[in-house]
Amino acid sequence: MNKTLLTDLYQITMNAAYFDNQKDDTATFDLFVRKLPQDWGFFIANGIEDAIDYATNIQFQEDDIDYLRQQGMFAEEFLDVLADFKFEGEIHAVPEGTPFAPNTPIMRVTAKRTQAQFLESALLNTINFQTMVATKANRVASAAGDAKVVDFGLRRGQEEDGAMKGARATYIGGAVATSNVKAGKEYGIPISGTHAHSFVMSFPTELDAFRAYVKTFPDNATLLIDTYDTEQGARNASIVAKELEANGKKLGAVRLDSGDLGDLSIKVREILDEEGCDYVRVVASNDLNEYKIDDLINSGAQIDGYGVGTEMITAKPVAAISGVYKLVEDDGGAKIKLAPGKKTYPGKKQVYRVDDEDGDYSHDILALDGEEVQGTPLLELVVKDGQRVSAKRSLVDIREYAQDCVAKMPGTVKGVRAAEQYAVETSPQLNSLVDELTGRYAHQDETSQTRFQ
Amino acid sequence: MNKTLLTDLYQITMNAAYFDNQKDDTATFDLFVRKLPQDWGFFIANGIEDAIDYATNIQFQEDDIDYLRQQGMFAEEFLDVLADFKFEGEIHAVPEGTPFAPNTPIMRVTAKRTQAQFLESALLNTINFQTMVATKANRVASAAGDAKVVDFGLRRGQEEDGAMKGARATYIGGAVATSNVKAGKEYGIPISGTHAHSFVMSFPTELDAFRAYVKTFPDNATLLIDTYDTEQGARNASIVAKELEANGKKLGAVRLDSGDLGDLSIKVREILDEEGCDYVRVVASNDLNEYKIDDLINSGAQIDGYGVGTEMITAKPVAAISGVYKLVEDDGGAKIKLAPGKKTYPGKKQVYRVDDEDGDYSHDILALDGEEVQGTPLLELVVKDGQRVSAKRSLVDIREYAQDCVAKMPGTVKGVRAAEQYAVETSPQLNSLVDELTGRYAHQDETSQTRFQ
Repeated sequence: MNKTLLTDLYQITMNAAYFDNQKDDTATFDLFVRKLPQDWGFFIANGIEDAIDYATNIQFQEDDIDYLRQQGMFAEEFLDVLADFKFEGEIHAVPEGTPFAPNTPIMRVTAKRTQAQFLESALLNTINFQTMVATKANRVASAAGDAKVVDFGLRRGQEEDGAMKGARATYIGGAVATSNVKAGKEYGIPISGTHAHSFVMSFPTELDAFRAYVKTFPDNATLLIDTYDTEQGARNASIVAKELEANGKKLGAVRLDSGDLGDLSIKVREILDEEGCDYVRVVASNDLNEYKIDDLINSGAQIDGYGVGTEMITAKPVAAISGVYKLVEDDGGAKIKLAPGKKTYPGKKQVYRVDDEDGDYSHDILALDGEEVQGTPLLELVVKDGQRVSAKRSLVDIREYAQDCVAKMPGTVKGVRAAEQYAVETSPQLNSLVDELTGRYAHQDETSQTRFQ
Repeated sequence: MNKTLLTDLYQITMNAAYFDNQKDDTATFDLFVRKLPQDWGFFIANGIEDAIDYATNIQFQEDDIDYLRQQGMFAEEFLDVLADFKFEGEIHAVPEGTPFAPNTPIMRVTAKRTQAQFLESALLNTINFQTMVATKANRVASAAGDAKVVDFGLRRGQEEDGAMKGARATYIGGAVATSNVKAGKEYGIPISGTHAHSFVMSFPTELDAFRAYVKTFPDNATLLIDTYDTEQGARNASIVAKELEANGKKLGAVRLDSGDLGDLSIKVREILDEEGCDYVRVVASNDLNEYKIDDLINSGAQIDGYGVGTEMITAKPVAAISGVYKLVEDDGGAKIKLAPGKKTYPGKKQVYRVDDEDGDYSHDILALDGEEVQGTPLLELVVKDGQRVSAKRSLVDIREYAQDCVAKMPGTVKGVRAAEQYAVETSPQLNSLVDELTGRYAHQDETSQTRFQ
């Protein structure tokens, strides 16, 4: 899947102008996220594997060049250059699934300026979305605790890729399954599904509908019990469960999808237990998010699993995070930006993760590349001379890695309303460089090389 | 592009259960949106053409069937049925670009129950997103008035499809161009782009950068003037504009991307005018939305165009609208749902648009199909016997149609904070049917055919 033309026009116009002006020195760009959304304590890096695939497969097709020619903006000489254009530089990135703080690079690209600049739009499109959804899912799964979270987001995802890459990101973040069959097939995510209210309404009675469903799925089925009256639905489910038992089969769960989920779950649990169906789980759905799940658990809800749709797959109301891609160094030296709220740390950098005495994560140190600093470096070389040099990780490995990492994050940065943001310190050499550049540029006039208004 | 497996697992499990229970009568489902987001007065139907393509191309591939077989859930007899499964029914839909009110169907599907039910997930995935973004873009473009709006959303769109289908939807809604080159190529949307701050930072001075850029793009270029000091940037742009004039060329515009856009636009306009560059337009970007644009215009900003990214392409903070797909009729008769906030109007229906004395739209009437009602019917037959029977509309036609329709909508439903929602009346026969079903079902027990808790 070639995404080469999935770029902002200005990447190509800048490229053309660099070409005309013979400006193609080596430049380094950092990809980082400026700011955590309210209540979030960290991000989980995602979309890294897709980003590597993108960067290592850039190739304008003949019809792409034809299309650009038709715009009447570009010289033939430049279009010839584009036909051979590819990424030949190097990329460092944190492993997909790594928790991280704002303003620390999760990807660092060093290449000829035209090549490094060109990656911006598509890298951000992929990494912004997947990072947002993996983190949102982790918040939801954390709130759910021992209860399982399943992605129900397909119908509200922002188009096919949003639902597909979103399902993958929710799985990495902590969901255990998805309702999205295509995501199951393409990524190997476990799939999960029950039936709709319309199924119940298609039979003369709810009991008829339940019997019809378990006729096909006699083992481990989930029955939706709120089409008419939830408590009666629980009793009907119990009847079916006992009929299944008589045949050596077991009903899996009942699902609530409306009303006061906490209160109903307690009543339904009681009914199921009274009827001897203590093995039948109670699962719930209906516009859930991490806050509602947290409230349900705090109110004593008896819910074993949650189906979460709209708000997990779109990260509503966040909807987008502030990932950016900024020039930090070129042949003219390190670059800094000092605008309030738009700070950029200069130079080629590395992020070091520092453990506490228990082996959990204490904080990160943002340092210059090569600087001697305590901790474990997070940015790894993944692309060299335009070729992938890191092994492609399996989804299961990424998920396990992400879950292990999150387990080591400080308690203060977790939870539905994180008390703190994951801490980052800057290193002595980076501080010196910032001071030097700040001092140097502060005295320059408004045509200086640095943007700091 | 086959999306058959892009479905919730429960569509397939229900299908299997319907098959086992020989339940395949004819059913009708309505696709409608329950609720307008705050401040919105209507929606613009979008994704209709993609939805038709989806429905008329359903076909499980051999490896899809293999994947389903591996789940160990489905009988071979059913998998054989799936291998031949396709949509053979009929679809009525409003033309893409039609403004509409909540709770009125924009698509009505009648087919064998298994086929009609199966469409739900993918139809909602496409129509929910595209309708939301087209409407959001219309709000932004309306706020901008005579100033032009360009989609800058690629880097914050929710993955590739979000950016691509989003660009198309923003164009239909009222944007005049997109920065997304692939969307330009695939859909024929005009493309637009300038340069980034990193371009300016790549040259010794801002003036050097501007001269380098117009060397390649001497006509109608846009220069980004806020990298260091916006007013000085305007003066530098004027210098370059006059150099271009000397060669018979013209600078197109300057772009502001930070700071107080209203105040800066007035100062920049003054500088450009003083320097004799009154033909150079001022465009602005930086996390804009319809509210901010409205405020800018009300405060006297001198801005000729807006680049709008994150909030238009994701409809942040709305992020998802409440489009649903509900059973309204089957061989057992019309179906109604009476749950508070989850009302469903029963039966096969048509939406009639009623004009006022000036030929503008007054309101809609939701009526039973075939009922004699004033107004123009909106739902058209687009698929018959599983085949598309409506001509595929060009993007330009859809955009023009949408803009014409919006122009006829009542003033009260427009604006950044719509005073009213577009009005819908229900017809006498529909009211009678609702009364009949409400009365009938209200006396039934909890195993009744209707969901109304």
